[in-house]
Amino acid sequence: MPTPSTDIDLATAAELGQQLRVDSIRSSTSAGSGHPTSSMSAADLMAVLVSRHLRYDWDDPDRPGNDHLIFSKGHASPLLYAIYKAVGVVSDEELMTGYRRYGSRLEGHPTPILPWVDVATGSLGQGLPDGVGVALAGKYLDELPYRVWVLCGDSEMAEGSMWEAFDKASHYKLANLIAIVDVNRLGQRGPTDLGWDLEAYRRRTEAFGARVFEVDGHDVAAIDQAMAEAGDLSGERPSVILARTIKGRGASEVEDREDWHGKPLPPEMAEQAITELGGERHLLVRGPAPADGQPRLRADRAVEVKLPVYDRGQKVATRKAYGEALAALGARPDVVAMDGEVSNSTYANMFAQAHPGRFFEMYIAEQQMVAAAVGVGVRGYRPFASTFATFFTRAYDFIRMAAISRASICLSGSHAGVEIGADGPSQMALEDLAMMRAVHGSTVLYPSDATSAAALVETMADLDGISYIRTTRGGYPVLYEAGESFPVGGSKVVRSAEDDQVTLIGAGITLHTCLDAADQLRDEGISARVIDLYSVKPADTATLSAAAAATGGRLVVAEDHHPEGGIGAAVLEALADAGRIDLSMTHLAVREMPGSGSTPELLAAAGIDGDGIAAAARRLLA
Amino acid sequence: MPTPSTDIDLATAAELGQQLRVDSIRSSTSAGSGHPTSSMSAADLMAVLVSRHLRYDWDDPDRPGNDHLIFSKGHASPLLYAIYKAVGVVSDEELMTGYRRYGSRLEGHPTPILPWVDVATGSLGQGLPDGVGVALAGKYLDELPYRVWVLCGDSEMAEGSMWEAFDKASHYKLANLIAIVDVNRLGQRGPTDLGWDLEAYRRRTEAFGARVFEVDGHDVAAIDQAMAEAGDLSGERPSVILARTIKGRGASEVEDREDWHGKPLPPEMAEQAITELGGERHLLVRGPAPADGQPRLRADRAVEVKLPVYDRGQKVATRKAYGEALAALGARPDVVAMDGEVSNSTYANMFAQAHPGRFFEMYIAEQQMVAAAVGVGVRGYRPFASTFATFFTRAYDFIRMAAISRASICLSGSHAGVEIGADGPSQMALEDLAMMRAVHGSTVLYPSDATSAAALVETMADLDGISYIRTTRGGYPVLYEAGESFPVGGSKVVRSAEDDQVTLIGAGITLHTCLDAADQLRDEGISARVIDLYSVKPADTATLSAAAAATGGRLVVAEDHHPEGGIGAAVLEALADAGRIDLSMTHLAVREMPGSGSTPELLAAAGIDGDGIAAAARRLLA
Repeated sequence: MPTPSTDIDLATAAELGQQLRVDSIRSSTSAGSGHPTSSMSAADLMAVLVSRHLRYDWDDPDRPGNDHLIFSKGHASPLLYAIYKAVGVVSDEELMTGYRRYGSRLEGHPTPILPWVDVATGSLGQGLPDGVGVALAGKYLDELPYRVWVLCGDSEMAEGSMWEAFDKASHYKLANLIAIVDVNRLGQRGPTDLGWDLEAYRRRTEAFGARVFEVDGHDVAAIDQAMAEAGDLSGERPSVILARTIKGRGASEVEDREDWHGKPLPPEMAEQAITELGGERHLLVRGPAPADGQPRLRADRAVEVKLPVYDRGQKVATRKAYGEALAALGARPDVVAMDGEVSNSTYANMFAQAHPGRFFEMYIAEQQMVAAAVGVGVRGYRPFASTFATFFTRAYDFIRMAAISRASICLSGSHAGVEIGADGPSQMALEDLAMMRAVHGSTVLYPSDATSAAALVETMADLDGISYIRTTRGGYPVLYEAGESFPVGGSKVVRSAEDDQVTLIGAGITLHTCLDAADQLRDEGISARVIDLYSVKPADTATLSAAAAATGGRLVVAEDHHPEGGIGAAVLEALADAGRIDLSMTHLAVREMPGSGSTPELLAAAGIDGDGIAAAARRLLA
Repeated sequence: MPTPSTDIDLATAAELGQQLRVDSIRSSTSAGSGHPTSSMSAADLMAVLVSRHLRYDWDDPDRPGNDHLIFSKGHASPLLYAIYKAVGVVSDEELMTGYRRYGSRLEGHPTPILPWVDVATGSLGQGLPDGVGVALAGKYLDELPYRVWVLCGDSEMAEGSMWEAFDKASHYKLANLIAIVDVNRLGQRGPTDLGWDLEAYRRRTEAFGARVFEVDGHDVAAIDQAMAEAGDLSGERPSVILARTIKGRGASEVEDREDWHGKPLPPEMAEQAITELGGERHLLVRGPAPADGQPRLRADRAVEVKLPVYDRGQKVATRKAYGEALAALGARPDVVAMDGEVSNSTYANMFAQAHPGRFFEMYIAEQQMVAAAVGVGVRGYRPFASTFATFFTRAYDFIRMAAISRASICLSGSHAGVEIGADGPSQMALEDLAMMRAVHGSTVLYPSDATSAAALVETMADLDGISYIRTTRGGYPVLYEAGESFPVGGSKVVRSAEDDQVTLIGAGITLHTCLDAADQLRDEGISARVIDLYSVKPADTATLSAAAAATGGRLVVAEDHHPEGGIGAAVLEALADAGRIDLSMTHLAVREMPGSGSTPELLAAAGIDGDGIAAAARRLLA
């Protein structure tokens, strides 16, 4: 590689902007798809940023002092990849033959399979919340002077999650966060809500606590000055650079035109536009170097964790065990927690009390909470984020995108199912197992007792990908001795005998009701095997298969969840994937809309109490 | 019932406030759970509203001119139910013996099983967005002068969805929407982000386009004046009443105390508080009457709908058929559509062009979009809301709550699965079937061709509950003749013969790849049955069972979705629920994280193309 230029002046930055435009056109035209016009509006902004402000060692993306650059408007990937070419980490050939092609790392929207990408974007309104998480880590955990620059689209300012991000950025005084809003006034199907009304954006972002800079997004000197000021870490407010830009800027045929979103220029138009832009360029540039320094907190997973110990028979809520185990796990300096303003219910408050410097109150903003987890994960921390299980539905898009981001985050959802009782259906998680199981590469855990809950919390801290633990509101007897092992993908055969006639499968509260049912059946001379399917995904296929074989294929699955996609589906999918299945399975789940009531009333109404399970077993044996 | 008092003066309103407090304490103490302190902060606000401003015929909750009252802070249900007692529609006995009890309509959080409740609340940040939908209907569809009053908590102002709501309320000039924010400064676990900083709330809500009134929320005269002005419909801006209040107001032991969220007062404390509040009262009051008038648009489902007709073999994208069918369905005046700024992709733009007065652009705000659907549904309209299928993950909490609201809304998700190609995983719906199936009472449809897509769109318009249609990006051959019937819960056996050896099950794109596979297998002398499972939920158990029986239990299920909770689970759950199952099922799904690529490349990589399905069938027969 030739030696890149450094100390780039504004004239060269302007040239670089043209190069980024040309390359955005070239790559998308070559691919036959992509968003060149959305890239061209932001090209000058990024040219100035990358050449003069972004402190980044392109040869060492893991360098601790590197600034971060997040494309919240992920569809501007042609621009991002053109930057990679301009700094010499992606070749022109790769740009032209890789973009959007099968097997290439230059995907249609950026993902972290590229070493310079922190988080996957492309679902709008997520890059900025993710950036808040990175900035939280920078200010409070790493204590390093890097900045987090986030390129935002104007369309995505309509997403509420952006305002959760601004709110938390100002609450946490994140002067290290700079949102650059590319106000090109055009969305996918036409004008945005606010058009070029920069004053409206100013009023809103200022009201949410930001320092605001308004610039002509094609005036490199103005951009430069705004970035110099916005990048200053001495204040206590996040910055917003509102840039008035023109979509398709520089290609007169598409400039500021409504029908050119997400469309590559046809080859002839592309050629003409490139000519108009001054032709191809191959500037190779580098911006300023990052600060030296190491993070204050370092991962030290060798530290001893003393999990809480529970006595068998003692009644303990698994949510309590979560809090106690998490507080213990906090001995590891990489463990961080956040909660959605319910930490006295999820028991994340036990971590907050023990490790206040590593706990982030996210208030009632579940999207931002999950994004903050992803963001601190970018910096190598292990986040545990908690709220009521059902309120993770609020953040499902963020969880899905976290998987695409290859993030490793731990989620804890309390108050699962009708077990919660009187609060009623709005507070009952009855879809969460289906939702979390469908996330790529996820692990879904649902312990029945405090011992297993605590063990699984410790296990989660080293799992790759999205892991989820579902906890229960009420206290139930501890079933397992401390020190017992609960591998992911395992299960516990809690009752078994040679003459088992039926298998009862539960997890969480329904493991207890399965045990109740087994007691009832035993009194009638029916021997029932009972399986604690604490690992809902992956499920323990071998144990399930063996139980099915041993009990004539007679299974009763009971779950405190709607019937679709939960434990019943997990059992069936696992057995079906293992080979021929020959089963009579009764699937007990919450099939009617519940209301308020006591836990026993609601479990009985759903048929997932001991009586309901025993009756189902009897029917299978009739 | 004694005759209620009317023309309530402010002194009586203040008395009413005390009564509402007392009754909030009484009901929650009797139930042993609930949120009395969160009710007491807002009691004066609601006393003034209900007695002097809310134009509502309590004897006829369906009266078209009635104002709407939505408790976005649904946990203040004791206050709401105390209001119902005060206006004489719920007895004191029901309040004291029903609240939060099993089988009672007075659930822990309000749901529309009560005739005066529009929408279920309890997941914070939803009542105001729902109210935006009702107000849209009032201004643009009904053209009636009712107002929508929404009681909001201050904690929920941290939810981004609230800002989506303010944004859309000002964009659509909803002067008929009044948010009353009960700023009691305390959330569940402690102080809110902004505490009593009413100026911060003012700056934010004003920046989002609202008229703002600041009041002492315990000064009935000030409240009265603000409500009189806010309720004026002559302007073009939504109103926000910011009320500084005290949590637990009037009961000195709990007033403004941090540890009294969501806790009933123990009986002795309750007694003391009631004494302090002046004892029990049994005021019976009515406020002003609603305006007369009928909605401009009336449901007329008898109107003839001329669905688009497609020729067999013609290549048409099902998303296009969605748009064309929806535009045709617009002949029904009750049909309304909204889209998340991608109507040129979902083809909702065809409806927008044909029926501009009944189309609402919601920009990139999926939560608000679904809430708007719920809100117009409250007024009797039939909403169709569309975006990319994967972006419904953004609104999952709203969809879940819509089911609890007993809403009937139609959702259309385009760009399902890896079929979309080059845009990459952020744009691919791979979790939506699992997510939508798990919603209580939902219908999940996934047509393979334009004829069935159009027919199903028409069917959706009369379904109860949440219905979802998944559409495909690319154009594929029309398979069915116009006029063929596609009942919910049905399927189509597209290929069958006496000697079928294996059954191939697909929907959407994979029905086409199943047909390709069947062609390949036929050339090898293998007869394969092919089932179009266009109704994923409910699934056609009879046809699936018959096919399994006819083909030796050999099934190949192919789906463009992650393996958990989708079509594979739907098939297994249906068969398992039907009785003994004896199957060898190969389940083909998207098991690895996809990247960019062409449709054929990505289908092949997931093993759900014709080759992959044929190979799976051969393995089953080997």
